[in-house]
Amino acid sequence: MPFTPTDYLPYDFANRRHIGPSPVEMAEMLKVLDVESLDALIEQTVPKAIRQKEPLEIGKAKSERELLHFMRITAAKNKVLKSLIGMGYSGTVTPPAIQRNILENPAWYTAYTPYQPEISQGRLEALLNFQTMVSDLTGLEIANASLLDEATACAEAMTMAQRVAKSKATAFFVDRDCHPQNIAVIKTRAKPLGIKVIVGNPDKMDASKVFGAIFQYPGTYGHVRDFSAQIEKLHENKAIAIMAADILALTLLKEPGAMGADIAVGNTQRFGVPMGYGGPHAAYMSCRDVYKRAMPGRLVGVSIDSHGNRAYRLALQTREQHIRREKATSNVCTAQALLAVMAGMYAVYHGPEGLKAIAQRIHRKTVRLAKGLEENGFKVDPKVFFDTITVDVGPLQAAVMKSAVDEGVNLRAVGERRVGISLDEAVRPEDIEAVWRAFGIVRKDDDFTPEYRVPQAMHRATDYLTHPVFHMNRAETEMMRYMRRLADRDLALDRAMIPLGSCTMKLNSAAEMMPVSWREFSMMHPYCPDDQAQGYHELIGDLSAKLCKITGYDAFSMQPNSGAQGEYAGLLTIADYHAARGEGHRKVCLIPMSAHGTNPASAHMVGWDVVPVKSAENGDIDLDDFRAKAEKHSDNLAGCMITYPSTHGVFEETVIEVCEVTHKHGGQVYIDGANLNAMVGISRPGDLGGDVSHLNLHKTFAIPHGGGGPGMGPIGVKDHLIPHLPERSGVVSAAPYGSASILPISWAYILMMGGAGLTQATRVAILNANYIAKRLEGAYEVLYKGPGNRVAHECIIDTRPFAESAGVTVDDVAKRLIDNGFHAPTMSWPVAGTLMIEPTESETKAELDRFCDAMLAIREEIRAIEDGRMDRDNNPLKNAPHTMEDLVKDWDRPYSREEGCFPPGAFRVDKYWPPVNRVDNAWGDRHLVCICPPVEAYGEAAE
Amino acid sequence: MPFTPTDYLPYDFANRRHIGPSPVEMAEMLKVLDVESLDALIEQTVPKAIRQKEPLEIGKAKSERELLHFMRITAAKNKVLKSLIGMGYSGTVTPPAIQRNILENPAWYTAYTPYQPEISQGRLEALLNFQTMVSDLTGLEIANASLLDEATACAEAMTMAQRVAKSKATAFFVDRDCHPQNIAVIKTRAKPLGIKVIVGNPDKMDASKVFGAIFQYPGTYGHVRDFSAQIEKLHENKAIAIMAADILALTLLKEPGAMGADIAVGNTQRFGVPMGYGGPHAAYMSCRDVYKRAMPGRLVGVSIDSHGNRAYRLALQTREQHIRREKATSNVCTAQALLAVMAGMYAVYHGPEGLKAIAQRIHRKTVRLAKGLEENGFKVDPKVFFDTITVDVGPLQAAVMKSAVDEGVNLRAVGERRVGISLDEAVRPEDIEAVWRAFGIVRKDDDFTPEYRVPQAMHRATDYLTHPVFHMNRAETEMMRYMRRLADRDLALDRAMIPLGSCTMKLNSAAEMMPVSWREFSMMHPYCPDDQAQGYHELIGDLSAKLCKITGYDAFSMQPNSGAQGEYAGLLTIADYHAARGEGHRKVCLIPMSAHGTNPASAHMVGWDVVPVKSAENGDIDLDDFRAKAEKHSDNLAGCMITYPSTHGVFEETVIEVCEVTHKHGGQVYIDGANLNAMVGISRPGDLGGDVSHLNLHKTFAIPHGGGGPGMGPIGVKDHLIPHLPERSGVVSAAPYGSASILPISWAYILMMGGAGLTQATRVAILNANYIAKRLEGAYEVLYKGPGNRVAHECIIDTRPFAESAGVTVDDVAKRLIDNGFHAPTMSWPVAGTLMIEPTESETKAELDRFCDAMLAIREEIRAIEDGRMDRDNNPLKNAPHTMEDLVKDWDRPYSREEGCFPPGAFRVDKYWPPVNRVDNAWGDRHLVCICPPVEAYGEAAE
Repeated sequence: MPFTPTDYLPYDFANRRHIGPSPVEMAEMLKVLDVESLDALIEQTVPKAIRQKEPLEIGKAKSERELLHFMRITAAKNKVLKSLIGMGYSGTVTPPAIQRNILENPAWYTAYTPYQPEISQGRLEALLNFQTMVSDLTGLEIANASLLDEATACAEAMTMAQRVAKSKATAFFVDRDCHPQNIAVIKTRAKPLGIKVIVGNPDKMDASKVFGAIFQYPGTYGHVRDFSAQIEKLHENKAIAIMAADILALTLLKEPGAMGADIAVGNTQRFGVPMGYGGPHAAYMSCRDVYKRAMPGRLVGVSIDSHGNRAYRLALQTREQHIRREKATSNVCTAQALLAVMAGMYAVYHGPEGLKAIAQRIHRKTVRLAKGLEENGFKVDPKVFFDTITVDVGPLQAAVMKSAVDEGVNLRAVGERRVGISLDEAVRPEDIEAVWRAFGIVRKDDDFTPEYRVPQAMHRATDYLTHPVFHMNRAETEMMRYMRRLADRDLALDRAMIPLGSCTMKLNSAAEMMPVSWREFSMMHPYCPDDQAQGYHELIGDLSAKLCKITGYDAFSMQPNSGAQGEYAGLLTIADYHAARGEGHRKVCLIPMSAHGTNPASAHMVGWDVVPVKSAENGDIDLDDFRAKAEKHSDNLAGCMITYPSTHGVFEETVIEVCEVTHKHGGQVYIDGANLNAMVGISRPGDLGGDVSHLNLHKTFAIPHGGGGPGMGPIGVKDHLIPHLPERSGVVSAAPYGSASILPISWAYILMMGGAGLTQATRVAILNANYIAKRLEGAYEVLYKGPGNRVAHECIIDTRPFAESAGVTVDDVAKRLIDNGFHAPTMSWPVAGTLMIEPTESETKAELDRFCDAMLAIREEIRAIEDGRMDRDNNPLKNAPHTMEDLVKDWDRPYSREEGCFPPGAFRVDKYWPPVNRVDNAWGDRHLVCICPPVEAYGEAAE
Repeated sequence: MPFTPTDYLPYDFANRRHIGPSPVEMAEMLKVLDVESLDALIEQTVPKAIRQKEPLEIGKAKSERELLHFMRITAAKNKVLKSLIGMGYSGTVTPPAIQRNILENPAWYTAYTPYQPEISQGRLEALLNFQTMVSDLTGLEIANASLLDEATACAEAMTMAQRVAKSKATAFFVDRDCHPQNIAVIKTRAKPLGIKVIVGNPDKMDASKVFGAIFQYPGTYGHVRDFSAQIEKLHENKAIAIMAADILALTLLKEPGAMGADIAVGNTQRFGVPMGYGGPHAAYMSCRDVYKRAMPGRLVGVSIDSHGNRAYRLALQTREQHIRREKATSNVCTAQALLAVMAGMYAVYHGPEGLKAIAQRIHRKTVRLAKGLEENGFKVDPKVFFDTITVDVGPLQAAVMKSAVDEGVNLRAVGERRVGISLDEAVRPEDIEAVWRAFGIVRKDDDFTPEYRVPQAMHRATDYLTHPVFHMNRAETEMMRYMRRLADRDLALDRAMIPLGSCTMKLNSAAEMMPVSWREFSMMHPYCPDDQAQGYHELIGDLSAKLCKITGYDAFSMQPNSGAQGEYAGLLTIADYHAARGEGHRKVCLIPMSAHGTNPASAHMVGWDVVPVKSAENGDIDLDDFRAKAEKHSDNLAGCMITYPSTHGVFEETVIEVCEVTHKHGGQVYIDGANLNAMVGISRPGDLGGDVSHLNLHKTFAIPHGGGGPGMGPIGVKDHLIPHLPERSGVVSAAPYGSASILPISWAYILMMGGAGLTQATRVAILNANYIAKRLEGAYEVLYKGPGNRVAHECIIDTRPFAESAGVTVDDVAKRLIDNGFHAPTMSWPVAGTLMIEPTESETKAELDRFCDAMLAIREEIRAIEDGRMDRDNNPLKNAPHTMEDLVKDWDRPYSREEGCFPPGAFRVDKYWPPVNRVDNAWGDRHLVCICPPVEAYGEAAE
């Protein structure tokens, strides 16, 4: 008997690692659902017409051991040279304490965006540190909590400048010394918006012709110059001055604020975040106080809780205005939270003296390098520099570049005759000697005399990082405890389910995360020679091929580094397609009312007019309205944007017809991939009629949310759109493959799940959602069921009736869930006053039951209010969440401490305590989730 | 100005990372101490005579970046082949979730031994899982919480057998199929105890001649046989049967309990713990219930707290009896907690079906391998095996071994003509094919027909791992949350200072920990060819050289894998030295009353008689008594064992004379290195007159305590003792370099500190201790100050007076400190009723102040009782620690919730809550620290 092979699959087989309910639990759940098998449930739930014909075949699932073995082989195909290419990407030293305790710690990386401030005080504080750091170093009053990358930040700054400038000019000036990728992304962004981009010498800029200008500081070829004069001219012409500045250089050099700049942008990568072949890193943006309401991105602010104690929260009003009803000019709805936290911690760890010392050492190394070259007769440019120089090598550019590679160093080809070299924190004397050897110089780097190449006038004269947090003790003990304390204040996936509808908070497994820290993935420069990045190319190629099989598309672009960025890139692709066919006038986009708010915002960014389509009674797209509007705009129809399954969590049967109608009228179909977790292995957007989709790799494909980023939003397209992808029609991100270094996570997920595992994940995601819907039945109304009376992978429950019956709002329920030990579901989206619950396949039945018990107990509390057994204003719901302070203080409430603090679902010993009571909600509550405003607002403009 | 080089040293310079107080804080502290400089404080504290003459020079300190760069170069000199050598070490797959969340998580690795059960419930539960797993798999009722390694566990089992056997025989039988290192360590241990070791064929064993026997199962050459008959014979002769069993094989094979074995030992390394060139791993020991009181090592037990709730705790009575006053037979005072936790979690994760499936696959792979060899004419032995076979290759042994290495595989040379091969979980089909190629066979490993080579009679017939914890859901989400919950229940260094006197709980920095996970260190077999381990050899060579410089010794042995093991090895070295000089009769050892309890236990283990030496009034060694006893035992004096600075935390000036007296009478001086953290760079034991010392690398040299192990206790010796080190006179550990894979931690620590940094650490450790002593002055009496009225690196405060004045015990103070957010100092050692506080250099002034505030507040509470303002029986001290449950329940105490739960020192938002109230202390409170019994007990025997 003992030797009979069992059919047990060890833990590291996909179906057990990623899929929450055990076989026994699944059987119990199916019983509750009164359905005989998972097959039968899927049969009831997913309309036959939309199901894919063949099972998903992408090779056998790998065990964790096989995966890591295979990953190591792939990683070894990347050659890690010392990249001194610069262009905004620098070698850096990630403090091991930060790597271990943040980057590799699920308490940080599995957290969600801090929309529920009471359970997010730790990362809100960390992000506030980041903002303070950016504000201080740039010398501007307000900084946001990060943007996707420096190039998109430049583009965002441009559109922001257009919004706030009093100048009526329509052109935008770009310093020719900006990094090439910054110029490229600015151009992509400008084109559909009708902005003329003038790239030129700042000294020759005609400030009267532009609404704004951007200058790189130091310039991409190393120049350090004072832009005060140019900025003054811009201001005389009511134009806006933007500086793209190296965050580390600002510890030594006169800061943008001191030159009068209005906006500063840049990358914080070199503050301890590895280059990662392009990302993810946290870009920053700061601006003068007067422009704060026009700034895109998230802004953490200080507020108070219901007891008047200080509490952090996202200050949402900035978001409201930057995606204003009349004209949304940005679709930004994510940040690079995890990387911003790392960069902020790097500053906390080093403090101002430390950062300055690092910058000084880099500068001195660069001076030594330059001296060595000069003393051997090379002409070094510029005279005034921070960390970057160029060397005139005449016709020998290729020879020197190759010779450097032979020495283990990547340099930058500048023009036809020059070679660029940028030094960084991680450069060792041997590296400098290697560079010299590439130039034929044999010399020891042993001259440690300090010498500087920055004139006094360019020195920074102001203090920075004066806040006490940057003056903590520098002992690692202190830092480790600080990071632990902040982590403990937050509730992330490593402690409880996060049932956020449309956000797909699934397991991010340790095996998937491990390769991210490997130097072969993390230490690659995005512009290193292709032959050094064969591992990445294989990974990206295979990942793309597998995503094609999963989605039914023919090609993928990995450039977009967020979902919204993917939407934008997808629409640009369609626009380029229309233009290429001489149909550039097609600019009308049909978008259902229930769409993600980013959809209309993205459409706006490509210069399209949004025409909203009504919803039918049952929440589906109103087909009649859709047909009518397609007909009406037939001549100008660019396409439609739909989400599948719908944002109401339903597999609509009409999707195929919607696509057909769109195509009939010459439009292209954009299917938002946000809900792909309900489709993988079961249905393919490409088969339904989609021409483009973006995928949220950070939802469906296991990249962690990182407390609000990073994300990845690659787009898949049909054959006919391939020539129009961003790579060919205009880049949208700073790096060729977006945030490349997190792609191993999704690849690992797919490789370890295999086709059957991925399909099973989808099926179980649907099972879990239906199980919750069933258990909550009777207590709550579940809105929008599909055929067979089933929901897809999420369900919406209605809390609106309680407003009248008990004075209880959706907010009260969400905050009460914190007492039960849960992050609230998605609030008031897509329907105000409701909760959208998505459990994902990763949650066990035990955890689902804990959640359902909590929800049912909350319903009973509401009933007690309805029945008059509980006070309408002084009850556990209104007073939620309860803190330890409440317990300690005198308790004069009409319910007990026990009832208040330990409702069903709450652990006892392992209870999570929020550090603050309910945070003051005066601001922007309606936008707690998914950020963009309701689509109705876009109607006027188009109609 | 900004370009002026600052003298700021970035965080990663040793003096800032490891040293808690900032320069500003240090200045403030010196002011409190009324001393003008740190130099002056050291001048006052450390007697001139014992200070070293030259500053410690061991090269320039490396930054973290340089260290990791250098470590990578060193690591690359280890060649990671697939080692199929067996001998108790197997390749394994560490589940990434366990690696990330336990091995690499400071919440687990920085924890101390769970002597304070209220703040250790998480790891106590994890260890209880381990014990349950061992007990189930071996089929014996009781298992301990791990031992150092399998070989020492064998030796411990032998001495345990001698203690419990009713047989009066003095010989011990050892199966010739035991692993060679098991036999070697048994022999070493047996010799000084006068046990005759008979190595032979179990079938020919004369059970009447032995008090016990040990059998390896499966045998080192692969044999799987039933020892029931032999065991029956042993029992007939009132002798004890021990089996050294492969823990994984027991999932398939008839278990030791079913054969009637009394004791089982073995290694749990292959349960997810990398081989690490020999360690650390958790050895196990289990036994029949009737023998539980004789079992060495720690035993976790289930108890209740003061509210009657279940609570885990160490059941100390087992310790009491195994180091009995009359005859201590073991000095075991540590475990391999972190590794036991990992192995236990591996079992929790896989569950019984998973473990069985893993074992089955390994067996099937071995069968396939054997078949391939047999079908090509090779003779494979044995017929019945689990994972190990040997192949007769005639005269071609060397050729096959080499050919295997060329294929990337290490095999084992067995005898003159055979080659051994052991397969494991990590073996892939390609590896099997590589082995075949080494034998000249080209063949694909594609035969997946299940086939078995174990007869039905040897199959296991019983269930195991039936407890629900081994039947958790197998989803990683569940596992991750379980590990997080357990971690959160414990208070470790990542949240608060652990001021344990004599335990030196200093920072374990992330940079130091990182190389431990590198495959070049972790995946090496301890018996792989030397030329594959050049990295390790360089590391060990350089580490030894640096330790020599630090201590003044001439050579080091890295074999001992705990402090007590080091003592034992050191005494063996001395004994061998005496014997070699024909003075084997020298067996009297002088040990001061204040010595660590392990000292006399170790002396006993080498067959010595302990003569205790009195303490003087001031706590110092009573020199007159010392002289008198040395004189008295002059002819038979083996040596003395002293601790420096003394266990009273004082730099005794008499140390040099003590050494001189000992030498004069022909003895050797053993200086216990437990307190070396007060000496590095300031004073060298070798200079004081020491002949041998063990160092606790897990105290002074930054190896984390891991919640109760691993440790490393290498010994340094003077020239004349080098020929007598264990490597030459009889091995003491299973692996040549003990727990080699944690040596990179100490090496990294030393390399990053440099001589100046290490010296500064010592000075600041002394500063921190004196600062605490000063701040507590007046409130508490500080016992045992040295010259200059200063303490060394720790101080003892007296709580005895409060017993009478307020009915407050040292326990009450310790438990109250939990409310304040601290682990208690060392309790009642070396003086009953006192607390010994050692802050180490890693704590900041802020944390020291938080601790002092807590201690002073406790003193005020005591005063309130003394003054009658507080009840003697119902007060915060007696009721401590307070739990969240206390807060929730009705509060009928004469003090407020606030006073009870938030005394000074306690964080508010980040408050640590113990999961249980005070654990019932009916058992063995006197032995809460350092385990071994007071030295007085040894007096009788010798005098």
